[in-house]
Amino acid sequence: MAMEDIQATTTEGQPLRCKAAICRKPGSPLSIEEIIVAPPMPREVRIRVICTSLCHSDVTFWKMQVPPAIFPRIFGHEAVGVVESVGEDVTEVTKGDVVVPIFLSDCGECIDCKSSKSNLCSKFPFKLSPWMPRYATSRFKDLNGEIIHHFLSVSSFSEYTVVDIAHLTKIDPAIPPNRACLLSCGVSTGVGAAWITAGVEPGSTIAIFGLGSIGLAVAEGARLCGATKIIGVDVNPEKYEIGKKFGLTDFVHAGESEDKSVSQIIIEMTAGGADYCFECVGMASLVQEAYASCRKGWGKTIVLGVDKPGSKVSLNNSEVLASGKSLTGCLFGGLKPKSHVPILLKRYMDKCHDAKFISNYQQELNLDEFVTHEVQFQDINKAFDLLLEGESLRCVIWMDK
Amino acid sequence: MAMEDIQATTTEGQPLRCKAAICRKPGSPLSIEEIIVAPPMPREVRIRVICTSLCHSDVTFWKMQVPPAIFPRIFGHEAVGVVESVGEDVTEVTKGDVVVPIFLSDCGECIDCKSSKSNLCSKFPFKLSPWMPRYATSRFKDLNGEIIHHFLSVSSFSEYTVVDIAHLTKIDPAIPPNRACLLSCGVSTGVGAAWITAGVEPGSTIAIFGLGSIGLAVAEGARLCGATKIIGVDVNPEKYEIGKKFGLTDFVHAGESEDKSVSQIIIEMTAGGADYCFECVGMASLVQEAYASCRKGWGKTIVLGVDKPGSKVSLNNSEVLASGKSLTGCLFGGLKPKSHVPILLKRYMDKCHDAKFISNYQQELNLDEFVTHEVQFQDINKAFDLLLEGESLRCVIWMDK
Ligand SMILES: [Zn+2]
Ligand SMILES: [Zn+2]
Ligand SMILES: [Zn+2]
Ligand SMILES: [Zn+2]
Repeated sequence: MAMEDIQATTTEGQPLRCKAAICRKPGSPLSIEEIIVAPPMPREVRIRVICTSLCHSDVTFWKMQVPPAIFPRIFGHEAVGVVESVGEDVTEVTKGDVVVPIFLSDCGECIDCKSSKSNLCSKFPFKLSPWMPRYATSRFKDLNGEIIHHFLSVSSFSEYTVVDIAHLTKIDPAIPPNRACLLSCGVSTGVGAAWITAGVEPGSTIAIFGLGSIGLAVAEGARLCGATKIIGVDVNPEKYEIGKKFGLTDFVHAGESEDKSVSQIIIEMTAGGADYCFECVGMASLVQEAYASCRKGWGKTIVLGVDKPGSKVSLNNSEVLASGKSLTGCLFGGLKPKSHVPILLKRYMDKCHDAKFISNYQQELNLDEFVTHEVQFQDINKAFDLLLEGESLRCVIWMDK
Repeated sequence: MAMEDIQATTTEGQPLRCKAAICRKPGSPLSIEEIIVAPPMPREVRIRVICTSLCHSDVTFWKMQVPPAIFPRIFGHEAVGVVESVGEDVTEVTKGDVVVPIFLSDCGECIDCKSSKSNLCSKFPFKLSPWMPRYATSRFKDLNGEIIHHFLSVSSFSEYTVVDIAHLTKIDPAIPPNRACLLSCGVSTGVGAAWITAGVEPGSTIAIFGLGSIGLAVAEGARLCGATKIIGVDVNPEKYEIGKKFGLTDFVHAGESEDKSVSQIIIEMTAGGADYCFECVGMASLVQEAYASCRKGWGKTIVLGVDKPGSKVSLNNSEVLASGKSLTGCLFGGLKPKSHVPILLKRYMDKCHDAKFISNYQQELNLDEFVTHEVQFQDINKAFDLLLEGESLRCVIWMDK
């Protein structure tokens, strides 16, 4: 019996003790503690996290003082892991497989998962639940027996976590984990919005409102789809240089011009309006500006930013009627986790054309430039500092070996 | 020299005297008077109107007391005519050709007309001008020399009118004129919205808010595209019977239920929401109800109704983001006049499958049922009465022979 099999028999089906970074109070540093991770229930998988990266949604819910905030909780939803053990009725993955957990379910059985037109699983609809999606219970407790809550069905700030099979995508183990983890959320959201939700064609013109990680990922997706004019809009002019790494060709410094609105400037730059506009800030008023910036006849505005609850997008009825423009939005960039994420990862690895991407030039998916920092697990709070200070795009956190 | 040629030499290139129904004051009956119709300028065509039909927009502008209302004016924008003479540089049609004038331009030269994605000509953009589109002048005056204004680039309530070549579609002369004229506006708008703007697929579910002529034409278009559930929503339950002639399969009596909103009812009827919702009333609040009625993941809401200037469509930013639904609108149903109208007319004539329409059953485009009344030109005011009283769908007005 090999060494690995001996270890397997000691942990499979048993609760497992490991380190996790727990948030016990809103906004306070995570504390690395020992926890107990229960074995996976049927259709669940326990994974050993290899690395994880910090996304803005982690920070948003870490800071949040009112419901749906809940504590203690294990954050983290961008990750790569190795299957440690599987629950009953799991045939899709097996021990040792490399997997990416994703906050959006892809159950494969419901009408949405079977349809090519939707990525919004009806069986486990997206919600901000603190529990496992299938049983509404937790797999985590601390050494005092206190229950610790899950986050976005992933909770990757732990050496081991349990994820429902509907939230796991199996990937090629050759892919560097500190790149693959980016596909769990932010990069996929932006690239997918350009590729799937907008359906950007070669030669298109694009305007991106807000050049955070998601906006930059939209630029990257548009570049891969062959867009020839990719305009970034941001209040911070330094974003232009960063954006060029992801295909940005032009920049509008929002708030700089006193006589012209951003939409007027974009309409002039594009001789009539951009083919596709993306709102990546999370301000309903910017959605209106994006809508105004897109081309009559076929312009499409895609909402990616999360505004305050209750905020409204208001459009002139006559303009909706007579402009021929459309407005839409998406979660996870409209990507279907299990089918689209492997295509994007292949696009990173192969540096080749994929049939779905008709690019003007051979170019890989640029994941490398998103990773601006890497830390070890014990320094996870540094990842928060870097993001809060606007220093990082993505900080990868390596689990201690 | 044949008789027709002799006549030709007497009118071609010359001003021509004929009868027209003139509106001299808002809301007052049209008066049939003799007018002078100037010969067509370059790229214009003078046509003898065979028949015309009354659309709600005629009535809206006939009643209107403030700008953009202007008088005296010749209304009418749904028609069929025969080319009497052509101006310089007209090669597309010739004397004797049968043509349908259309309020939306299709110049064939601009970026929009050349694109399959737009039907909004940039050379002669849609506007409520009282003049000919190319020269911003009138071709009509009365016998006192007073200028009479045009309407929607058509002005078909006249025995002769002048129409720019960009606003004319040549059709098969075998098509009955009292059917072909319907394609100038209302029926095309509804059928096109289902066919082109929505892209309704076989098996789709549809909800139509407002069962006037346009709403019924949406039902007809959805039926031709193979939709299997076509739900009409109206405050008048009598519309269900009429709607069945155009493919309506279900009906929601708006305002009848006290506990459930229309969207709740539609969501129940369709197990999650309609694939496509159409707002055909012209109430921004109904656009919101239509949006709420459509299916998460892929539902599309199409705005066809004209609300008061300044009215706003207001949607929750979070719903736009997370629902995957989209909102759009169109003029003339998104149809490109010169390419799509002949396809629809063929569909009426051939009673056959067109490659563009994948229907579950062989069925012609039902134009006949839209024509509820026919009158002679001297009785044109009766057409107004019938529409105002809600008696007619379309009243065809035959020019005196
Ligand atoms: Zn599903
Ligand atoms: Zn995220
Ligand atoms: Zn044009
Ligand atoms: Zn009309």
